[in-house]
Amino acid sequence: MNRLQRALDALVERIDTPAPIVLVDVMQGNIDRVQGFADQRNIKVRPHVKTHKCVEIGRRQIEAGAVGITAGNVGEAEVFAAAGFDDIFLAYPIWAAGTKRARIRRLAESARLRVGVDNVAAIEALADAMGDEPERLQVVIEVDCGARRSGAPAEAAGDLALAARKRGLVPVGVFTYPGHGGAGRDVRRRAAQDQEAALTTAVRSLTDVGVTAEVVSAGSTPTLEFSTSSVITEIRPGEYVFGDLNNARLGACTEDQIALFVAGTVVSDWVPDQVILDVGNKALSKEGSPEIGYGGIAGTKAVLSKVNEYHGFLPLPDGEFCPSVGTVVPVVPNHVCPVVLGFEELIVTDSTGTSLQRWPVDARGFLN
Amino acid sequence: MNRLQRALDALVERIDTPAPIVLVDVMQGNIDRVQGFADQRNIKVRPHVKTHKCVEIGRRQIEAGAVGITAGNVGEAEVFAAAGFDDIFLAYPIWAAGTKRARIRRLAESARLRVGVDNVAAIEALADAMGDEPERLQVVIEVDCGARRSGAPAEAAGDLALAARKRGLVPVGVFTYPGHGGAGRDVRRRAAQDQEAALTTAVRSLTDVGVTAEVVSAGSTPTLEFSTSSVITEIRPGEYVFGDLNNARLGACTEDQIALFVAGTVVSDWVPDQVILDVGNKALSKEGSPEIGYGGIAGTKAVLSKVNEYHGFLPLPDGEFCPSVGTVVPVVPNHVCPVVLGFEELIVTDSTGTSLQRWPVDARGFLN
Repeated sequence: MNRLQRALDALVERIDTPAPIVLVDVMQGNIDRVQGFADQRNIKVRPHVKTHKCVEIGRRQIEAGAVGITAGNVGEAEVFAAAGFDDIFLAYPIWAAGTKRARIRRLAESARLRVGVDNVAAIEALADAMGDEPERLQVVIEVDCGARRSGAPAEAAGDLALAARKRGLVPVGVFTYPGHGGAGRDVRRRAAQDQEAALTTAVRSLTDVGVTAEVVSAGSTPTLEFSTSSVITEIRPGEYVFGDLNNARLGACTEDQIALFVAGTVVSDWVPDQVILDVGNKALSKEGSPEIGYGGIAGTKAVLSKVNEYHGFLPLPDGEFCPSVGTVVPVVPNHVCPVVLGFEELIVTDSTGTSLQRWPVDARGFLN
Repeated sequence: MNRLQRALDALVERIDTPAPIVLVDVMQGNIDRVQGFADQRNIKVRPHVKTHKCVEIGRRQIEAGAVGITAGNVGEAEVFAAAGFDDIFLAYPIWAAGTKRARIRRLAESARLRVGVDNVAAIEALADAMGDEPERLQVVIEVDCGARRSGAPAEAAGDLALAARKRGLVPVGVFTYPGHGGAGRDVRRRAAQDQEAALTTAVRSLTDVGVTAEVVSAGSTPTLEFSTSSVITEIRPGEYVFGDLNNARLGACTEDQIALFVAGTVVSDWVPDQVILDVGNKALSKEGSPEIGYGGIAGTKAVLSKVNEYHGFLPLPDGEFCPSVGTVVPVVPNHVCPVVLGFEELIVTDSTGTSLQRWPVDARGFLN
C-alpha cells in the first residue's frame, strides 16, 4: 500500500487534514473488475451508493455497465434521482409514513423505483402512499438468508407478492442480504450458499402463486465472488468500489485494491511510543475493537488503538515507524462506508498524486 | 424519559425517520443550569460546539452568558466566525500546513482567535502561517492531566509560552482535558483533581517565566461539577447541552436532562423477540459495546444490541415492550456528539411536541 503514501506526499501542500483521499485509478479498477466478473456470468451489477454517496462515482459505475443503483434510504434515492439516475432500487423495508409518503410518490414519478418490502403492513402503507397510481411502484420482496435482520422467511415471499399485487403494486422479484458472511473465505462461501438457497426458495414461492421473479438480487462485497448461481440476476455490492481493511482481512479485496484512505497529520507526540493524529471517530467512525484497532497506517503495521472525536491514538511500539509532528500519513479505515458522512467532498487523485479534483459527497446528510 | 415519547407521538406525522429531535425546553434548561453553576463560582463558560455544530444553539449559549465558543477544528471555527461569533478558542493542537495556513490567518482577522499548542514545532508553523502579523494570534498551552492524549507535561508550559512569545505569538494561558474522567462519580472527581493539579503547575510554570495565565481552561461535561477550583477561569463543556446515556450512566446528567434523541421506526419484525429499527450506525455512530448496547429506547429497558449502517437490532426479550411495524420510538444515543454528523438539520420541538422548527447543522462536514 505504499502507493497511498506516495500519492499523499505529492498532494500534501494542496490539502488539509483530515481528508478522505480517493485514488481514482484504483477505484476505476475496482469498478471495472467487478463489472467484468458479473458480465462474464451474465449477472447485472446494481451498486449500492451508500458507500460513496457521490453522483460522479455513481455515473462511473453506470458507464462501466451497471444497470442502475441501489440506495439505502429515500434521501439517497432522491439525491441520485435529481442527478438523473432513473433506475433505483431502495433495498430497504421502507415504512411509508410522515412526509415520506409524498417523497416516495415523487420518486416513483422521476425514476423507475423499486422498493423492498418484507411484511403486509408495509405493503399497505406503500400502496396508500401511491394513491391512485400504485402501479408506478415496483416492489421486491426481502427474504432472510441467515443475517436475522430484515427479510421474511423465503417461503412467505409468494404471499407477500400477492398482497402487493392485490393493492395494485407490481411485485417484480426477491432480494436478500447475506450479512452473516462477514468473516473468512469459508464463512463467506457458506453465506453465499445460504443466500442461493433462500433466493431459490423465494423464487419458487413466487412462481407457485403465479408471479414471475424478474429480479433476483443478491448482496454484498464479501460474498460477491461466490454469488454466481444461475438463480441470481443481479448483485448489489457497495464496499467494492473503495475496499477497506475489513474486506482485506476477509480476503474480499487485496491491499492494493484499497482506493480510499483518510489523510491525517501527527499533531502531538508527548506520550512515549505514541503519537496523536487529527483523525478521530468523526472521520473514521468507531469501527473496530481494541484487538484489531480502529484503522491502520498504510504500508506499516501501526493501527489506531483508540479514537476520540478529533484525536486518533497511534501506538508505535516497535520503533521502526516514528512519524514526527507535522507528518501526514494515510489512515486506512476498517469499514469505509461511514467515512463519507463527515466530509463535504472527496479529494480525488491518482496513484501518482499529481491530479486533484474535489467531488462532493452529494447524498451526505440525507439519512431518512 | 416518557416526555420523549410524548413529544414524538405529537410530531410523528410531520417528520421522517431517522431524525434527530431536540427538546428545546430541556436543552435551554441545560444551558441555563450550567451557566448558573459557573456564574455562582465566577467561572466563565466557553461551550464546545462539536456537540451540536449548530449556530442557533451557539447563539443561545452566548445569550445565556457564555464568553465565546470552543471549536475542535478550523472548519468549525470558520462556520461560527462567518455567523458572527467573534471569540473562538480552537482547543486543539492545530498543525498549520497546507491551505490551513491561510485559513487560520483569515480566521484571526475575523475573530479573537485562540489556538491550542503543545510543542515548539507547531508554534513555529503557526507563527509562519501568521506572516507579519503573529500578534493577531493568541495561543493557549495544552498540558496533559492524565488522559495521555495531547498536551505537554505541565512543567513544560512556561518554555512553550516563551517559544510562542519569541515568535511574536501571544501566549495567554493554559488548558487541559480530563479525558480519563469518563467513569463513575469517584473517577470523575479524581480526574478533576488531576486537572486542577496540572493546571496549577502549568500556571506556576508560566508565572516563573514572566507570562500571565489570563486563561486557565478546563474540560468537560463529566468533570464539570468538580471543576470549581479557584485556579480555573473557564470551562469548555460540550455534551451538557444535550446529555446522553453515557453521561446519565456516569451520573453527569439525569435522564430527564437528555434533550436529544433519534426518532426511529420499526421496519421489520420477523425474528422472534426482536424488531429492526431504521436507526443504524450512520445515525448513531457505533458508540457502545455488546454489554451496554448501542443506544436505548427512552422509557424502557430495551437497548440496541447491534447496529448496521441503516438497521438497528432491538431485542425485546421480556415481552413488556413490543412495538409493531410502523411504530416510531425515541432512541437515546450513548454518545451524542457524533449524531449530528449524519443529518442536514435538527428537528427542534418542546416536551409537548407541538412546536416544530428545523435548525441546520451548520458545521457538519467541516472536519478539517
